[in-house]
Amino acid sequence: MRMLDLIAKKRDGLEHAGSEIAFVVRAAAQDEVPDYQLSAWLMAAWLNKMTRGETVALTRAMARSGKTLRLSGLRAPKVDKHSTGGVGDGVSIPLAPLLAAAGLAVPMMSGRGLGHTGGTLDKLESIPGFKVRIPIPAVERQVKRIGVCMFGQSGDLAPADGKLYALRDATATVESRPLIVASILSKKLAEDLDGLIMDVKCGSGAFFKDPKQAEGLASDLVRTACGAGLSCVAVMTDMEQPLGLAVGNALEIRQAVAILRGDFAASDYAEVLFTLGGWMLVLGRVEKDWRRGADKLRALIATGKPLARFKEMVRAQGGDARVADDPDKFLPVSRLRRELKAPSDGFLSRFDAKLIGRAAVALGAGRDKREDKIDFGAGFVLRRKLGDPLRRGETIAEVYASDPRRLDEGFRLAQAAVSVARARPKPRKTILKVVK
Amino acid sequence: MRMLDLIAKKRDGLEHAGSEIAFVVRAAAQDEVPDYQLSAWLMAAWLNKMTRGETVALTRAMARSGKTLRLSGLRAPKVDKHSTGGVGDGVSIPLAPLLAAAGLAVPMMSGRGLGHTGGTLDKLESIPGFKVRIPIPAVERQVKRIGVCMFGQSGDLAPADGKLYALRDATATVESRPLIVASILSKKLAEDLDGLIMDVKCGSGAFFKDPKQAEGLASDLVRTACGAGLSCVAVMTDMEQPLGLAVGNALEIRQAVAILRGDFAASDYAEVLFTLGGWMLVLGRVEKDWRRGADKLRALIATGKPLARFKEMVRAQGGDARVADDPDKFLPVSRLRRELKAPSDGFLSRFDAKLIGRAAVALGAGRDKREDKIDFGAGFVLRRKLGDPLRRGETIAEVYASDPRRLDEGFRLAQAAVSVARARPKPRKTILKVVK
Repeated sequence: MRMLDLIAKKRDGLEHAGSEIAFVVRAAAQDEVPDYQLSAWLMAAWLNKMTRGETVALTRAMARSGKTLRLSGLRAPKVDKHSTGGVGDGVSIPLAPLLAAAGLAVPMMSGRGLGHTGGTLDKLESIPGFKVRIPIPAVERQVKRIGVCMFGQSGDLAPADGKLYALRDATATVESRPLIVASILSKKLAEDLDGLIMDVKCGSGAFFKDPKQAEGLASDLVRTACGAGLSCVAVMTDMEQPLGLAVGNALEIRQAVAILRGDFAASDYAEVLFTLGGWMLVLGRVEKDWRRGADKLRALIATGKPLARFKEMVRAQGGDARVADDPDKFLPVSRLRRELKAPSDGFLSRFDAKLIGRAAVALGAGRDKREDKIDFGAGFVLRRKLGDPLRRGETIAEVYASDPRRLDEGFRLAQAAVSVARARPKPRKTILKVVK
Repeated sequence: MRMLDLIAKKRDGLEHAGSEIAFVVRAAAQDEVPDYQLSAWLMAAWLNKMTRGETVALTRAMARSGKTLRLSGLRAPKVDKHSTGGVGDGVSIPLAPLLAAAGLAVPMMSGRGLGHTGGTLDKLESIPGFKVRIPIPAVERQVKRIGVCMFGQSGDLAPADGKLYALRDATATVESRPLIVASILSKKLAEDLDGLIMDVKCGSGAFFKDPKQAEGLASDLVRTACGAGLSCVAVMTDMEQPLGLAVGNALEIRQAVAILRGDFAASDYAEVLFTLGGWMLVLGRVEKDWRRGADKLRALIATGKPLARFKEMVRAQGGDARVADDPDKFLPVSRLRRELKAPSDGFLSRFDAKLIGRAAVALGAGRDKREDKIDFGAGFVLRRKLGDPLRRGETIAEVYASDPRRLDEGFRLAQAAVSVARARPKPRKTILKVVK
């Protein structure tokens, strides 16, 4: 088999056999063909697309391109979650220990924030001492011991994906549905899971604004995962406004702790948490009905076990578990604080998630460039959500930053993110659709 | 300007500005962007095509990417020729000194044979001592002194073309009309010419079998050259059968010498020679009518000046000029000889140029791989041409090789290349069309 022939085949819009896809992926992982051939093939795949069969083959080949998690000794069902990225979406943080407390094994592989969306790894690192770069054998040991580990993608798992992603990033071939799907799923497949839940966000702060497009991705992910032998359900959730009542790293950890303590004030956040969790119990074949699973998890919180599991995880990964006992004392908060107030009486009719995400980056809570440092204590605490009645001068959000110029810029962006209307807007759904 | 944005633009089917094309070409020539970005752009250009404006800009930018010939001191019009490649097409070899003898300056940049088509440089090298790798300043001096130099493409002229061609060759992006046109023309543009003649071959032994496609290329070449400020005429010529009466390196030099001595027995070869030459006199503004130009060149042969100019050129480039006085003595002929005979009475109705070309390679006259050595004395002397009457057992061609196995294989292929029919076939035209 010659790479040149495979490039020509994709260029001519023909379908690759599984063995041909496997050749490309192996060549990429082992540097057996030059990058300029891989990038020509990627561009041909971008323009001529890939069939479902090719996408499944690509996913499988990338999953097999390096090490895989060895959790076969475990009797507990193994589940993980992937989110397409949003603002205020720290749901993974309480979800992982909650499911571990419910008896599942949760090797949770997460990412960093870039642009207006936050990253679970950054949020976890706001816990003093918490480590997310964990070698594969240590992940395996921790999952076997306490049922949960939250870690960053390692170059050892699905290395072909890392190689191809870097090339795609440099050759304008990132936004290809089959390549995106294969990239997401290959890393999960390498975890040797029994089930995967996808949170596909939709709205101003999401990759997709259009529900049709979001559903297209959800459907592609579920079918490709299924084709590759991984049970998968996708839940489409609203990202028109930030999720929950916190945006920012330590602020979201605080919210995660509150939820695990039984404070469900962040009602949309709680709904996403229990809906995803309920479906994960179904995927793990612990429950048949996701609603029963969700109820079970809600009740589990009251036992204190999920909070205890969270603390165990924090300790296991080198962090200071006292953040769960006294967040005010052990989590950072940026020293400057300003209140965003309602400019008039009415109802909160717009709370633009993307602008709030950009405002959070401006405050220091995120990154513009990969090498930017994060101010863990910066961000927003939200006091109002879409549809809430407002009085002029009432506080909509508290704004935190460490630097006056950053505070000004973030505050200005946040002002632009809100609108107040006279009429009460139509209530919004948080869970838009389930694709399975 | 960022290469990433330019890749995305071409990927999305948008038209590049001239400055953007210039950026890509400069980046390629000076290794300022990685090859994997260039190849992604090439694949996008292959699939989304390029406009005439982009092709002109690409041609110009590649022409300017390195050194150019400096012949501005010359008063004589500067002309060159390009052929799309054929079998038995050694026309350049008498053409260059003929036009020099007619007062034109002819810096003739030629190529090597690969596959079934022969290469002018290989043919010239069958002259003992003849050198084709000549530094640019020496080309300039020789053209100024004797009006003609036949040389191989130098890495100094249009280096961006060499770089991009190598990448195209490795990424299945060779066969793109705009990229082909720009590649051909950029090298010629770097010669600082007043006129360029294109010989676009059409038929079984040519890149194009279909006259419509050949005409499409001819038209693209002429219009793009014109857009880049270079006067150009394309002559479409027949390549259904081998041109002339010789196929093979030294055998074609022998034919070139015969023509320059006034032996016009190879009538189709002579017709191509004088037609191209006539048009080159028009391009050089020496004649208004190509037929008058052709007649003038035909008459010029009788003066002996073109033969003398050929000998001067051979001497200037280190070759043994006695090949022009006594070809039998000074040119190599392979020692094994066999005659291809007519299997029955009738007319020669098929003389497949591609098969004869492949047979010549089998005999040792060409290359399968770039590193193959050539047997200069191998090939065919043709005694009959398409449409000629045949008696059973009459010789159609003499076959030469140095190795018995090669002789067998070439002979077998040549047998497969000919057919004899009862009825006299329709006469064929040699000159199919002129595109200007």
